[in-house]
Amino acid sequence: MSTYGKLFKVTTYGESHCKSVGCIVDGVPPGMKLTEDDIQPQLTRRRPGQSKLSTPRNEKDRVHIQSGTENGLTLGSPIGMLVANEDHRPHDYSETDLYPRPSHADYTYIQKYGAKSTSGGGRSSARETIGRVAAGAVAEKFLKLAANVEIVAFVSSIGEIAMDRNPQNETFQNILNTITREEVDATGPIRCPDANIRESMVKVIEHYRDSNDSIGGVVTCVIRNCPIGLGEPCFDKLEATLAHAMLSLPATKGFEFGSGFLGTQIPGSKHNDAFVSDPSQPGKLRTKTNNSGGIQGGISNGENIYFSVAFKSAATISQEQSTSTYEGKDGVLAARGRHDPSVTPRAVPIVESMTALVIADQLLIQRSRDYSRAAVFEN
Amino acid sequence: MSTYGKLFKVTTYGESHCKSVGCIVDGVPPGMKLTEDDIQPQLTRRRPGQSKLSTPRNEKDRVHIQSGTENGLTLGSPIGMLVANEDHRPHDYSETDLYPRPSHADYTYIQKYGAKSTSGGGRSSARETIGRVAAGAVAEKFLKLAANVEIVAFVSSIGEIAMDRNPQNETFQNILNTITREEVDATGPIRCPDANIRESMVKVIEHYRDSNDSIGGVVTCVIRNCPIGLGEPCFDKLEATLAHAMLSLPATKGFEFGSGFLGTQIPGSKHNDAFVSDPSQPGKLRTKTNNSGGIQGGISNGENIYFSVAFKSAATISQEQSTSTYEGKDGVLAARGRHDPSVTPRAVPIVESMTALVIADQLLIQRSRDYSRAAVFEN
Amino acid sequence: MSTYGKLFKVTTYGESHCKSVGCIVDGVPPGMKLTEDDIQPQLTRRRPGQSKLSTPRNEKDRVHIQSGTENGLTLGSPIGMLVANEDHRPHDYSETDLYPRPSHADYTYIQKYGAKSTSGGGRSSARETIGRVAAGAVAEKFLKLAANVEIVAFVSSIGEIAMDRNPQNETFQNILNTITREEVDATGPIRCPDANIRESMVKVIEHYRDSNDSIGGVVTCVIRNCPIGLGEPCFDKLEATLAHAMLSLPATKGFEFGSGFLGTQIPGSKHNDAFVSDPSQPGKLRTKTNNSGGIQGGISNGENIYFSVAFKSAATISQEQSTSTYEGKDGVLAARGRHDPSVTPRAVPIVESMTALVIADQLLIQRSRDYSRAAVFEN
Amino acid sequence: MSTYGKLFKVTTYGESHCKSVGCIVDGVPPGMKLTEDDIQPQLTRRRPGQSKLSTPRNEKDRVHIQSGTENGLTLGSPIGMLVANEDHRPHDYSETDLYPRPSHADYTYIQKYGAKSTSGGGRSSARETIGRVAAGAVAEKFLKLAANVEIVAFVSSIGEIAMDRNPQNETFQNILNTITREEVDATGPIRCPDANIRESMVKVIEHYRDSNDSIGGVVTCVIRNCPIGLGEPCFDKLEATLAHAMLSLPATKGFEFGSGFLGTQIPGSKHNDAFVSDPSQPGKLRTKTNNSGGIQGGISNGENIYFSVAFKSAATISQEQSTSTYEGKDGVLAARGRHDPSVTPRAVPIVESMTALVIADQLLIQRSRDYSRAAVFEN
Repeated sequence: MSTYGKLFKVTTYGESHCKSVGCIVDGVPPGMKLTEDDIQPQLTRRRPGQSKLSTPRNEKDRVHIQSGTENGLTLGSPIGMLVANEDHRPHDYSETDLYPRPSHADYTYIQKYGAKSTSGGGRSSARETIGRVAAGAVAEKFLKLAANVEIVAFVSSIGEIAMDRNPQNETFQNILNTITREEVDATGPIRCPDANIRESMVKVIEHYRDSNDSIGGVVTCVIRNCPIGLGEPCFDKLEATLAHAMLSLPATKGFEFGSGFLGTQIPGSKHNDAFVSDPSQPGKLRTKTNNSGGIQGGISNGENIYFSVAFKSAATISQEQSTSTYEGKDGVLAARGRHDPSVTPRAVPIVESMTALVIADQLLIQRSRDYSRAAVFEN
Repeated sequence: MSTYGKLFKVTTYGESHCKSVGCIVDGVPPGMKLTEDDIQPQLTRRRPGQSKLSTPRNEKDRVHIQSGTENGLTLGSPIGMLVANEDHRPHDYSETDLYPRPSHADYTYIQKYGAKSTSGGGRSSARETIGRVAAGAVAEKFLKLAANVEIVAFVSSIGEIAMDRNPQNETFQNILNTITREEVDATGPIRCPDANIRESMVKVIEHYRDSNDSIGGVVTCVIRNCPIGLGEPCFDKLEATLAHAMLSLPATKGFEFGSGFLGTQIPGSKHNDAFVSDPSQPGKLRTKTNNSGGIQGGISNGENIYFSVAFKSAATISQEQSTSTYEGKDGVLAARGRHDPSVTPRAVPIVESMTALVIADQLLIQRSRDYSRAAVFEN
Repeated sequence: MSTYGKLFKVTTYGESHCKSVGCIVDGVPPGMKLTEDDIQPQLTRRRPGQSKLSTPRNEKDRVHIQSGTENGLTLGSPIGMLVANEDHRPHDYSETDLYPRPSHADYTYIQKYGAKSTSGGGRSSARETIGRVAAGAVAEKFLKLAANVEIVAFVSSIGEIAMDRNPQNETFQNILNTITREEVDATGPIRCPDANIRESMVKVIEHYRDSNDSIGGVVTCVIRNCPIGLGEPCFDKLEATLAHAMLSLPATKGFEFGSGFLGTQIPGSKHNDAFVSDPSQPGKLRTKTNNSGGIQGGISNGENIYFSVAFKSAATISQEQSTSTYEGKDGVLAARGRHDPSVTPRAVPIVESMTALVIADQLLIQRSRDYSRAAVFEN
Repeated sequence: MSTYGKLFKVTTYGESHCKSVGCIVDGVPPGMKLTEDDIQPQLTRRRPGQSKLSTPRNEKDRVHIQSGTENGLTLGSPIGMLVANEDHRPHDYSETDLYPRPSHADYTYIQKYGAKSTSGGGRSSARETIGRVAAGAVAEKFLKLAANVEIVAFVSSIGEIAMDRNPQNETFQNILNTITREEVDATGPIRCPDANIRESMVKVIEHYRDSNDSIGGVVTCVIRNCPIGLGEPCFDKLEATLAHAMLSLPATKGFEFGSGFLGTQIPGSKHNDAFVSDPSQPGKLRTKTNNSGGIQGGISNGENIYFSVAFKSAATISQEQSTSTYEGKDGVLAARGRHDPSVTPRAVPIVESMTALVIADQLLIQRSRDYSRAAVFEN
């Protein structure tokens, strides 16, 4: 459904052509400084129309806090937020509405709901992610203050042009150790920190744009300073909750963390992360390598958590497609307008936001575990 | 935590050296024929010690239903099940207990819990999956009766030896269309239906066994006859709940469905699944290709759902490892006994079980949606 | 927290002096006719300032649907709704802000949250119930269409003036059988259907109003045509979920259903509800009496469900009170303005709304149980 | 369903005639001393057959911990517990099985589930409460160690013989302040601390026993030393979660806390609890009176929390009853054996157990709130 989280909880609403989209964030600690200025930057980063690489629509997407703060401080009560839709009239039906768009949600929505919004699969619209990003910005602020957690995502592949994500690649680990959001944005709309392939990625996107086609990619995300001990064994392992959050994003096809799918090919003797003492934190160990991606047995171990999310080539393309009408008649779905040839770069802030929501919730849960353990230990 | 599901709910308990492991399954429909004979086969399939490829321990793992059935029929009340642990004495501490095993859960458990069970990361033990498999067998029986749902998993890669999982590969799609659990088991302990690579896979495992090492692999799973409309938009998309379930399994590193990570390289014009009428079901459409993996906009579309899960090389290996003690002293962790060089084939029934738990829960949710839609439509 | 329900779910936000209050309703069936006109009447009924019996403030409380409908039909997606706050400036602090108001939430809020909104216990404000009432109106529409469920609440006592709620009182059972919302409102702002005591109730309220004091009362609610089988044994019995919902309302002190507290004094031989055949529904039984209040073993039995909710005398009164400042100094809290001498009559639509939210959620759950039972029975 | 709690979570299983009844308790802190000796006493207190006032069956009800502890300390993993059923053969059907027992769960169960266990409404059996009591004992141990929380319940009325529960009655408040579990048990099987009425209560029960009838009563419970700040505004107010827990117990008809239903008759000026400084805890206030029952705005304020639960006269009586068969034929249900004339005294440990489960869960939640507030305050 439209609610995520146990103690730090977000509920979203809104589709493309309604009055507004928004969310309610519950479980935000009281007394935290928070204004729209903390939230707007990530919303602006997710906004389409920022470059020649993306769709030319220019939505303003200004967030308005409705509740939960007073005099710039949170009250501990739910934070309602909304972003107006610029164009909230239901569309006229056109000839193209006879066709469910291939690999879009039109067909499954009409099967599930019977009804069809004029924007097709209403909640499958990318505008649905606005509520997530607004909520994620609140979670990020909490995580920054509480534990200096840093979350940075970037594009690691576009089509066949890919960074080497081998966990034993030193350059890759260096990027994970140091990359900042500012550095990612400084690379331009492509949001890829690898200078060797960045231009090729742009060319690939331009190629598909010029072919009225689209191409997918991978977003990689690192969490630095994640406290040790987050994640619950069994069904709510930390990687399971991250995978859930990432695969809940539109257009995703896969998730891997640490060594990922490649890790299946590395023998245990090389894949195992040997322990070493951590001189800076007595009683804590570090690992020499980080094939585990910062999670062992479902629980964070204090190393960088990193994972990658596959985004498919956008289903909406600017060329004709042979397909069938809702009634089962073969035909050709005409192209409608111009579309974003690659949604992957815009997914960067959305991945960061969902990551923040996961970690904030898990941190709240774990702190109650810490408390209870301290309260009873060996008594 | 140790509970999964909203309407079809399982809660598990147990670690390696306690009296028993087991589960409570809640939300099972009443009046369904159910005895231990419905559950034991999958437990037997997950049991170690079945071949020279796996660990020689021979656990008996007999399940005992405690409640929820009478005269061979379910009552609609929770089904308690347990499997006794053969060896439930806490172990003596030995020299090797000074070391957290690399890439195992020992270190994170002691950080999270302070306490250490003699079997190390207690709930991270593979024995924890017994409760899931027992519950999954109940879910499978329900799904079979309710909608003839078929769930079959198999090994699709071991180390670098891999089936071609390209969604546009016809052989691969044929396997997904027809493979049965019996055929998978007929391939022997390797559980790989691809005769061309099966022997190479066995050789790879034997190689790592003989090197006192381990190697990972990938399990692919197909769901046939999954009803249309399962999955909830936004946070509980069907792929998100499957990813959550799969990444909650021990030793997993990644999840992909449909075209997966490879799908990021296929342009939209080729990746989109064109619709065609379904002559056998008026009002329903099929897709010509299935890059979507049976899920569009987070909702099942009636095509085969298929996905793959990466399992890392087992962390417990039969060779010495240079690492650190809990106290931070460098040293060498001695090898302990002989260990399974590849857990991937044994993961097959576990993947099937978690899949059944996900689909059973989503089916129950969707049927209430169907009801409510019919009750109010255009009124 | 601020979310209620499993399948029919509401999340609310807002306190007295923020921009707006509102809610998100998730799980609403698609294709249902729904506009603001379905929602406004209950909001208007809960509005203060409707008579000389209640507080003279006149809030307009117009609801605005933000999402989830198109052309007057629901889409199956979350319905966002908001009501603007007329006065959303934080108040200036005044002398009276030095005191936590006795029996109000000021003290516990500052202990829990550290922060204090200028309206004191922010979320404990009665304005918080606006979101519940808006959501309840949607639930009611669904229940009416799906099963002709009727929910009617009324005032059954004010101070010591009370209807005879003995379950064996025929007049009382007749009221439960026939009372309509229109009849309740026709009694004026007192909302009590018992003509014999209505005037005395009004006099009691006027007495306390003139004494700058307040007085409590009881709201009784009946659910007619509730389908058989709602409620889940063990922790989610139907009466448990109703009690939870009712005690979550501000100013409540107690809940009883069927014979209630009085039922503890009626011996089993008289309290047991004998069964009789139901000529109108073959295969169904009715009960001769209804001490059970329509729920047996936690499950609805098809009889009227009825229950009563105690509302305390309002904590905010128009007279001085000797108490302590936040800092622990004895003093006198001055009276602030004029206040509602009895909130009980205004609670009527709020009780109805929470009832609808409970029953809608339970109905959705039970319909999936019905489906699964039919799918597997004796197979 | 059969799971209760968010962070401290219990799941139960079992009906009268299955192999065992039991539970899984999840979220128990690690490192806590725990053996069967901590759990057995409350199970023994809830056991029937302890006196001539209760049913003569003598079940042994020995609890066996299955998992989650090692060497007498908890591991932080789920604690599985079971109690064998002495008589776990399905019963033969007899003539009396043609009748749904009046005011029992037989009829609603067969309507909901279609199936009928030989013990009638399977999960509605009082044996279902064994799992709750075992789990509650674990929660109590945690609460005692963490915050010295004391939970004591007692019988406050039987039929018309009742203690004066007026919150302004000094004797009643003294009992709440000082009563211990040992003192309650010292009063014999009646479990009523009021010496003035205890004998009359016993006589009432004996009267109904001799008349082959039954009589109800009220159990009152006090929580002392409950930390300030527990309970979440809006839907999860502390009183709402307590009411939910109590009304989930078999045979309950009502719940009230603090001044309760009587409080509706006390004007605000007298009902309001004035604040005074707490010399023993700087920065904390106390209240002079406690009509609020320790909860204001849904949040605990540090005073005694007290509430009362109505238990109906037992539905199973030792005399004939005119009623209808399942098929709708009028007839007489014969008496079966001898039955407990008042279940109220045995409910005492069950009420305590559910109370402990509620408070443990809320305490874990609140401690994470405390953490987050401290982490961000005014930053």
